Amino acid sequence: MWDVAEELKAMLVFAEHRYYGESLPFGNDSFKDSRYLNYLTSEQALADFAVLIKYLKRTIPGAKNQPVIALGGSYGGMLAAWFRMKYPHMVVGALAASAPIWHFGNLVPCGVFMKIVTEDFRKSGPNCSETIHNSWGAITRLARTGSGLHWLSEALHLCTPLRNSQDVQHLKGWISETWINLAMVDYPYESNFLQPLPAWPIKVVCKYLNNPSLSDAQLLENIFQALNIYYNYSGQARCLNISETTTSNLGTQGWSYQACTEMVMPFCTNGIDDMFEPRSWNFREYSDDCFKQWGVRPRPTWITTVYGGRNISSHSNIVFSNGELDPWSGGGVTKDITDTLVAITIPEGAHHLDLRARNAFDPTTVLLARSLEVRHMKQWIRDFYASQRKKH
Amino acid sequence: MWDVAEELKAMLVFAEHRYYGESLPFGNDSFKDSRYLNYLTSEQALADFAVLIKYLKRTIPGAKNQPVIALGGSYGGMLAAWFRMKYPHMVVGALAASAPIWHFGNLVPCGVFMKIVTEDFRKSGPNCSETIHNSWGAITRLARTGSGLHWLSEALHLCTPLRNSQDVQHLKGWISETWINLAMVDYPYESNFLQPLPAWPIKVVCKYLNNPSLSDAQLLENIFQALNIYYNYSGQARCLNISETTTSNLGTQGWSYQACTEMVMPFCTNGIDDMFEPRSWNFREYSDDCFKQWGVRPRPTWITTVYGGRNISSHSNIVFSNGELDPWSGGGVTKDITDTLVAITIPEGAHHLDLRARNAFDPTTVLLARSLEVRHMKQWIRDFYASQRKKH
Repeated sequence: MWDVAEELKAMLVFAEHRYYGESLPFGNDSFKDSRYLNYLTSEQALADFAVLIKYLKRTIPGAKNQPVIALGGSYGGMLAAWFRMKYPHMVVGALAASAPIWHFGNLVPCGVFMKIVTEDFRKSGPNCSETIHNSWGAITRLARTGSGLHWLSEALHLCTPLRNSQDVQHLKGWISETWINLAMVDYPYESNFLQPLPAWPIKVVCKYLNNPSLSDAQLLENIFQALNIYYNYSGQARCLNISETTTSNLGTQGWSYQACTEMVMPFCTNGIDDMFEPRSWNFREYSDDCFKQWGVRPRPTWITTVYGGRNISSHSNIVFSNGELDPWSGGGVTKDITDTLVAITIPEGAHHLDLRARNAFDPTTVLLARSLEVRHMKQWIRDFYASQRKKH
Repeated sequence: MWDVAEELKAMLVFAEHRYYGESLPFGNDSFKDSRYLNYLTSEQALADFAVLIKYLKRTIPGAKNQPVIALGGSYGGMLAAWFRMKYPHMVVGALAASAPIWHFGNLVPCGVFMKIVTEDFRKSGPNCSETIHNSWGAITRLARTGSGLHWLSEALHLCTPLRNSQDVQHLKGWISETWINLAMVDYPYESNFLQPLPAWPIKVVCKYLNNPSLSDAQLLENIFQALNIYYNYSGQARCLNISETTTSNLGTQGWSYQACTEMVMPFCTNGIDDMFEPRSWNFREYSDDCFKQWGVRPRPTWITTVYGGRNISSHSNIVFSNGELDPWSGGGVTKDITDTLVAITIPEGAHHLDLRARNAFDPTTVLLARSLEVRHMKQWIRDFYASQRKKH
């Protein structure tokens, strides 16, 4: 974005979503009670962006009649696309990078996400996904005895030892999330998005995961080496803390509430098309967890009702970009819908790689994607000025 | 609509706006406290319509893949247009009859409404608007003394006698609103929308208002005769009640709250371009009144922010129809915006005449308007089926 802003002589504005970062409508009480959380919705966020753009146009000299483009990645990419859909008078177009706008309801199979995660590991080293597939059973078997639990805690260098089967379930979830995160940030160069990581981190991880036929203990020792790449690339960590998976504060509280109201994304695994333990999508359980945590129940059909699901062809000027390595691409728009609702896929891209700063190790495919994106932006701007001229 | 539904083999659904009629989210408490009123917004109404359409499509046999068209008049017309703008995946098009979607902010001059009211009276009889113009001074002069107040109350057959200048202000407002209502329902045949009325009621009223140069008392006696047409066409009223202007319950409470939050429509008069006493648009006073009545303050720029103001050209498939006699046409879309955002004007039409049932006295212009409207609807339906075929 920084690179493109210069080329387009644009001002970059980063709008902070309310309830994230420092934008807390009720200060420190914002998350204390569900009645303070009523204003945490995607619709409210879009409305805030609209008011912000109006304000900026009114107050910044020279901004008044300038075209605006919405950009975002991930949830921000969904917001960018939805903003163009709902406020087309505010932005001439939107770049929705890695925006899984179809990961709702039954628009895509619930297993698509974990299937892509698995595929990333399968392609990154011999036997890699198979080794992970086998690790769950190894954990289960080792965890059957007290000494096994103790051994596991030691072998994985856990900060807090495992005590019971609930802890083991938690451990498995934490390891799964680690593989998911690695799939999202499988970038071609050293980076620090969720954690500081080497280039192509899955390849590095997979070096330790090339033998699925070892003993349970040997297999878990290799899993530790792999996890250590993710959690301890800097070499500073003395133990692994299974209560967190990312270093940076990405607003997990806010997202947890949103996932429990509007943003209901069904996930599942079957252990056949993916390397995880089978787990079906259980809305009732999901809803009960939400009620326990936030005192609210999710509305699973609302997002497709308000944003149109797959029926979005009457909108215009949105570029949906997706990296094929990115598990979120499974819920994204990866085929052109119309001439002005276009999909750009980046075969060697992970989660919104295209939005990252230029890098010497950028694969050609992301360079091409970015240049296509800029071409669309320039077209939107030209169209905007042409229609302005017609008016006067 | 009934006539057209038959022609298009359509099902007619009347969706009741929440907080109107029997749709009271908090029962009898719905209007008791402003915290019960948070769900009374146009956005919420649109969301309700979306959920309703989804529900109907799911539950009514054969409805699933049928195209839907939004229709509405007045505020309902605004909602129809906005619904197509915000939920284009839900309806193939919208007929927005007499929808003043531009009567917000400074999109149109605040005097346009009363100018059209005046024009209706000017055209409906010699000296008619001039007589009304002169009546305000006559009332003011008569109201200066106690005996004048008494005389006025008797001459106008008021149910409650006037006591002070505040009552006189109220009387003037009530008379003004009567002329406004007459302009809205100046239909070519007997009707009963706001009140039971003769055909072309302004012409009938104007028969009593043809001499602006009479004495104050004589002029007011004629004003009474004119008012009597509106309030006592049936001959049943024993006195005129200046606390109400319509017989039917049009949801004045709900609208009052909406006008005090989102739906801020600026009105003004100058006594030159119109037949009323000059009154400028005073937002501060308006806001203070809202705060007194509802404990809320209006957000005058929100409607143009959320619905785009005049910048709506990226939308499609909306017919905006307006009667030229209708004062609301001043805030309506009366010129084509694009090929699919079209304006239909009905020179002899009052407030959404086109939505009324067929009548032997319908002017040719409304017949033409209706046939154009149906032609657009048929095109939307054809386009819908064509795009369905393409998908499969």
